[in-house]
Formats: sequence, structure tokens, C-alpha cells
Amino acid sequence: MEVTKTLAQFVIDSQYGDIAKPVKHEAVRSVLNWLGCAVGGSHHETIDIALRALAPFSGPAQASVLGRSERLDIMHAALINGISSHVFDFDDTHLKTVIHPSGPVASALLALAELRPMSGADFLHAFILGVEVECRIGNAVYPSHYDVGWHITGTAGVFGAAAAVGRVLKLNLQQMTWALGIAATQSSGLREMFGTMCKPFHPGRAAQNGMSAAFLASKNFTSSERAIEAPRGFAHVLATARNFDEITRGLGESWEVALNTYKPFACGIVIHPIIDGCIQLRNEHKLNAADIESVALKVHPLVLELTGKKTPQVGLEGKFSVYHSAAVAIIHGEGGEAVYSDACVRDPAVIALRDKVTASIEQGVHEDAAYIAVKLKDGRVLTKHVEHAIGSLARPMTDKDLEAKFRGLAKAILSPAETDALIGLCWSIDKSNDASEIARAAVPAAALQARARVS
Amino acid sequence: MEVTKTLAQFVIDSQYGDIAKPVKHEAVRSVLNWLGCAVGGSHHETIDIALRALAPFSGPAQASVLGRSERLDIMHAALINGISSHVFDFDDTHLKTVIHPSGPVASALLALAELRPMSGADFLHAFILGVEVECRIGNAVYPSHYDVGWHITGTAGVFGAAAAVGRVLKLNLQQMTWALGIAATQSSGLREMFGTMCKPFHPGRAAQNGMSAAFLASKNFTSSERAIEAPRGFAHVLATARNFDEITRGLGESWEVALNTYKPFACGIVIHPIIDGCIQLRNEHKLNAADIESVALKVHPLVLELTGKKTPQVGLEGKFSVYHSAAVAIIHGEGGEAVYSDACVRDPAVIALRDKVTASIEQGVHEDAAYIAVKLKDGRVLTKHVEHAIGSLARPMTDKDLEAKFRGLAKAILSPAETDALIGLCWSIDKSNDASEIARAAVPAAALQARARVS
Repeated sequence: MEVTKTLAQFVIDSQYGDIAKPVKHEAVRSVLNWLGCAVGGSHHETIDIALRALAPFSGPAQASVLGRSERLDIMHAALINGISSHVFDFDDTHLKTVIHPSGPVASALLALAELRPMSGADFLHAFILGVEVECRIGNAVYPSHYDVGWHITGTAGVFGAAAAVGRVLKLNLQQMTWALGIAATQSSGLREMFGTMCKPFHPGRAAQNGMSAAFLASKNFTSSERAIEAPRGFAHVLATARNFDEITRGLGESWEVALNTYKPFACGIVIHPIIDGCIQLRNEHKLNAADIESVALKVHPLVLELTGKKTPQVGLEGKFSVYHSAAVAIIHGEGGEAVYSDACVRDPAVIALRDKVTASIEQGVHEDAAYIAVKLKDGRVLTKHVEHAIGSLARPMTDKDLEAKFRGLAKAILSPAETDALIGLCWSIDKSNDASEIARAAVPAAALQARARVS
Repeated sequence: MEVTKTLAQFVIDSQYGDIAKPVKHEAVRSVLNWLGCAVGGSHHETIDIALRALAPFSGPAQASVLGRSERLDIMHAALINGISSHVFDFDDTHLKTVIHPSGPVASALLALAELRPMSGADFLHAFILGVEVECRIGNAVYPSHYDVGWHITGTAGVFGAAAAVGRVLKLNLQQMTWALGIAATQSSGLREMFGTMCKPFHPGRAAQNGMSAAFLASKNFTSSERAIEAPRGFAHVLATARNFDEITRGLGESWEVALNTYKPFACGIVIHPIIDGCIQLRNEHKLNAADIESVALKVHPLVLELTGKKTPQVGLEGKFSVYHSAAVAIIHGEGGEAVYSDACVRDPAVIALRDKVTASIEQGVHEDAAYIAVKLKDGRVLTKHVEHAIGSLARPMTDKDLEAKFRGLAKAILSPAETDALIGLCWSIDKSNDASEIARAAVPAAALQARARVS
């Protein structure tokens, strides 16, 4: 069976008019959410460092760094914007595979849009196709691929970026097949890096490498034509089990972007039921940390595997601590970026409550659920069962929720007027003649003016 | 056990004066051989395509493209020179792991030398350390890592480039540990790509990605500190068995570069005993293809696994065909780049003899050996047993052999005087105040003049 070529054929044949409106709307929501995360993360230390290290090697000023004044060649812009969009661990999640789909695809595409003008509809179409490719490849190898230790957002994301950019570059079947192959042979990213700057590096590098795969293929740089399915191809080398039907079945009938979800909380999705439940308990009972004797969590095994850090030392590590997350949800009533600062992780009040939190694996608790029992010093035990966390497919964030999240993220970077304009451009992107408008609108005028004064 | 940190500590502590002269001489031989391959390969279609696709995104003209007039930022120069050096499959081989060690390391280092002046001794020292790191990591995971389907030159090479560049950037222990981690999470390259342009892409990308890992770490971009040994680190995720002693035992006492070998023939090393033996039979018996009824080869299993293509269609595929290689060795008496051209692979006389070649696996034949039986139409059977192929550790190429190989490769690119000068610079590199001299000397004056006339 020709898996790689079948996928390539689908990408080049797809017609925008054949895609249903709700699918397109979910794609717009994905782009809005991605953009808010990238703007919000754009001044994180990780971005400052990456720019200091790599900007001296950037080519012509072809594309915007979202939220900042720098302009870089499109490959570096894709890298940096991809890092920004994941640095808060606040971006979207394809729940079937835990892929964060938008980062690799949108970061590449929007940079490209500044070099090669494209309509908003073309942008959105290529975005939908890129997400489809990465998530279908993810579906084919999940969970064995993830269990081995691969960060699937990086490993699958590089295919998505290659497909999306390849679509815009109008690759033919041969070239699109090669592009997927050149992507496959760059597929990388280890889960060992979770909790370090390399985690957000993965979607950035996937965007950059996937885009360069498409450009190489456009000039007829060759690769295997069976890069996904061959015995020494991606799905065999990077996974212990695989199902190619997940890639080739029902192409164009169902759309993975329609299954995308958005995080209300700035941390790994597996902790969301806990945060959701702790905030509910706090608000229902006006909980005070001083009254609490212990907090017992019953969770899915992945929660401890991914977020089992008992004593996080810095903000980033806090995102990988279910203990910290439960404590701040009870104390601060939220799970936004602010509660994952270094200061908050080191706050003695937070540490004191964190140390009272225990977590155990409960058979039969699914990934989206949790049981919480708060024992008070007066002997009462308050319990909460979360069946589906807010932000899940069963309880999705509304368009208004997404706007509010966007405003929260952009607050420190863009003016309210700039934020309003950018949100407006996103909602109407499929009517735009020039998709790159949103890239330029995501750069604060104040930063550009400051830069102009310096130079 | 701290594997990654131990290796990082070794790289930053190493003293050039502690390395024995023969080790340094082998490093010089490696650099000479690498440079010849890179210059020789610099006008291959693969390079033209890669430049057409990616040069528009290059940064400042910081470093030379060997053998050509283009100048690129050091990351792109490392990529392109790494591709050139492997495009003929004619570069060096660390036989224990089948790593081609110089490509990833030297391509990064020489580009860096043009941006950050360094002495020849510093260059050579960093080169030796880079090769040490990549080959020790290779030793730790070979053969399981290779058997899974990884192209080890890419996957291990990225560590070598990071270590070598990190040494020159004077990273501290923390930064060097991070650099190895940032390398680990970019480790990639599938054997499925053999026979396509992606194979030489692997050492190029490893050079580029390893160098960027070192630059990121130099600005304190963080990664795991146990990227090699952790349960979700490189050695567990990319291999089914591993021995960390191979990394940490006897550091500074033995040197992997001393085990490097150079190819007399422009193809995969597993076919070299066959080519060697066929050339010997041809010369001893003045063989004529028209007199031959059949050629029977008895080989190690890897020969058929790696080079079992029966009917190659293009030159590059010929390198992965033991049948074609045996035929041209008998007809042309050589295994240089010329016999792996498209024309030669499609030559009816070569095809006719190729179709008479059979190969079978023989138990007990080691990787460096082969048995050949040529049956003539007059009934005679001529046999040859090759115990160690020319170019192996047991029968190394001499310095003079390496010079002759270099001249053959550089012939079409550099003038004889330029070639002499470049060879001279290589042999005396450890006395040079400026290692980057060899980069500029590897650019033909004629190309620069032609370029100047155009612009």
C-alpha cells in the first residue's frame, strides 16, 4: 500500500469548497488560539535566548517575529514563532494523540505568507491540510510512538509543516511525496526534554524543518517515496505498532482539525481535570489554604507519568507538577500563566499547600477525568468528581472564552486597540486577500517605534 | 551514572598536549580526506538543488561553500559542505559503527573558523573531540540503533558537531551538557533514505543542527542534563540495547579517530572487498567481460541488506548495487566516482555483465571479506578470497594514496596549483595560526572571478 503517496495525492487534490463550514470555523479558532499563545509567549526568556543565539545567522528580513520588532528570514521566523506558541504550554491539543497541532503548521505558513502573498482562504486551506497530515500520521502511530519517548508534536509536526507549505508552493505529486520524505528523515524530539526550553523548541524546529523540506522538494531534492510506510520508514523506526488505515481511510470525509481543543489552563492537558475540580471546590466552599489538612487526588496514570514533579524549583517545572497545579488552583482560583512563574512556584504559601497534596492512580479513571478529596482541619471531607474538564471536546471553550484567553495573553504585549484589531482579522481571515496581515498586526507598534529610535 | 555530564566534562577538560602524535596525524588524514570529498562533490546536482532551495534564506556571507563561489552564513555553509562531503559516499568510515565521522564535525568547525578565528591546533583538537563524542555515542548503541533503521552518521553526528563547536565556544560544563541535550533532541535520519539525496543531507543537517545546539547552549538555552542516558533519552528511545561504558570508559586514553578509515572506492564500504577482489582478478587474468559466463559472490549478510539493488537506474543507485559494482570493477578496473555516473549505470556492456552476477550470504564471512568466483565461457573458474579490503584498518591507505584520491576528486574543480596548495595547508594545519585558510583555499579562483564578472 502506498501510504505516503496517497497522503501526498490527497494534499494536492483537496478543494477548499469541499470542506464544511464548521471545520473551517474550528480552523479559525485554532489559528486565533495559536496566535494568542505566540504573542503572549513572545517575550519569554526562551525566545530572548533563542534570538540572541540564532538571529546573527538569519537571512533577509522576510517575516515578522510575532509580538516583537525583529524581522527574520521565513525559516527563522517559523522557528521562533513556533517556540513562542508553545513556550507557555498553553496552545491547542488534538486529544487523540496529544499533538499540539497548530504550532508547527501555522508558524511555517504565516511566515511564508509574508514572502509569498496568499489569500486568507488559501492560508486556511493549507493550514487545515497540514493539521490533517500531522494528526493522521499521529493517529497511525499513537500511542506506541509516544510511549517509546517521542514528543509527537515535533515528530508529527514536521510532516504537517511540509504538507501545508508544499500545498502553497503548488508541489506536484512527486514533489509532495518527496517533501513528506524529507520531513520524515528530520522527525525528532524527545519527551526527556519536557520541563526544559527544548520542549517548545520542538514545534519551532518542526515548523522550520518541515518548511525547508517543502522548499527542497520544490527544487526536486529527492527522498524515499515510501518514507512513512517502508520497513525502515518513519512508522516502523519511530514506533512499535502502527495502523496505516488511520492515514489513508476517509481522507476528505472527516477532518482532524474539527477535533482540536484549547486549554483554559497554561499547563499540560492531563492536569486540567484536577485544576478544573480544585477551582470548583474553592469557589463552591470558599476554601482557605490554612484550613486544609490534605488534598488527595485520584488520577489517570499519565498524570503521574507526565506531571509527577513533587518539588518544582522554577515556573516551567511547575507545569509538570500536578501537586503545584492543585495548590495554586485552590489558592489563586486559576491556572493561567501567572501561577507558573518562578515566584509563584517558590511562594512559601503555595509550597506549604503543595506538600499536602497526594496523588494516586485510580483504575478506570479516564484521561479527561479526576476525583479530588479535600480534607479540612475541622474533619470535613469535600469531594469533587470531574467527568470532563473544561476545554475538552465534551465541554469546549466558546468563541468568547477564546477571545478572553487571547486578551489575557496579549495584554502585556499589544495595546487593547491592537488586540481588538488582531482578533477581528483572525475571525475574518477567510475573507482576507492577504493572510500576512495578521502577522504584521501581531507586532506592537510601540516595539517598532522603539526600534526605529535606536537605529 | 551521569553519562552526558561525564562526556561534557571530558570535552571541556581535554588538553591538546595530552593527545599522542599518531592520533593527531590520523585526524589530519581525516580532514584531508573529508576536504577532498567535499570539494569533489561540490558541483553535484544535489548541491545545486540544495543551494537553489535554501540560499534565499541564508544570513550574512560568513563562510565559504567549498569548491564553489557562494558564501553563506555559517549554519548554511555547514549544511552544504556536509552534504557535499557525503554526496559521493566516498568519505571516511569508523568501521565499528559505520559512522562517517568527519562530515558532521568538520563541516561545522571549518565554517565556524571563518567567523571565529582559531588556530589549526584548536581546530584539530575540537575536531578530535567531536569525532570522539559521536563515535563513542555510536559505540554505545551500535548495532541495535542501526538495525532499527537509523542512519547513524546523522543521529550520532549531531552530537559530534555540538561537542566540537561547543569546545571552540568555550562552553562551561552546564552549557556543554545542554548542548549535547539540544543535539540529542534533534537526532534524526532514516536508513530508508539510502539511495536518495537525503542520505548526504543527513551529515549536513547534523553539522548544522549540532552547531546551532552549541550556539543555543552558549546563551543558556536549557535541555535535559541526562539526554543520553535517561529512560526517555537518546540511547533508550533510538536503540533497543545500549552500553554506557562505551561512552565513559577510558576517556582520553583511547581515541576513536585513530580507528578511522578512508575509502578507495566511491560507494558503501560493505562492497569494497568485492570491488577489491574483482579488480585483482581482472588485473591478474586480464579479464574480458565477453569471456565471462557468470560471477558468483559470497558475502556478509549486510552486503545484500545494504547494496542488494539488482537493477539500478541512476548513478546514485549504482552505489547500492553490489552487482553493478562487481561489473564495473571487472570492466573498468576501478571503483571511483566515474563508474557511478548515470551513463555508466545505463551502459549496455555494464548491464550485460551485471546481469551475470549473483550474490549469496555465506556464514562466517566477516564484513571486511568476500569470496569471488568468475566462471569463464571456456569452463575455467577463477577465484579470489579477500580477507581485508584495501582501505581497511588492516590494509590502510597510505598518505600518498590519500593525496592521489584527493587529486582525483579535486581535478575538475581546482587547478593543479590550487590542489597542491590545499593539500599542503592540510598536512601542516596544526602549525597554522588560522584554520580558516583551508576553507578559502578550497574555493577555486576561477569561480570567484567568474562571479565577480557577473556581479
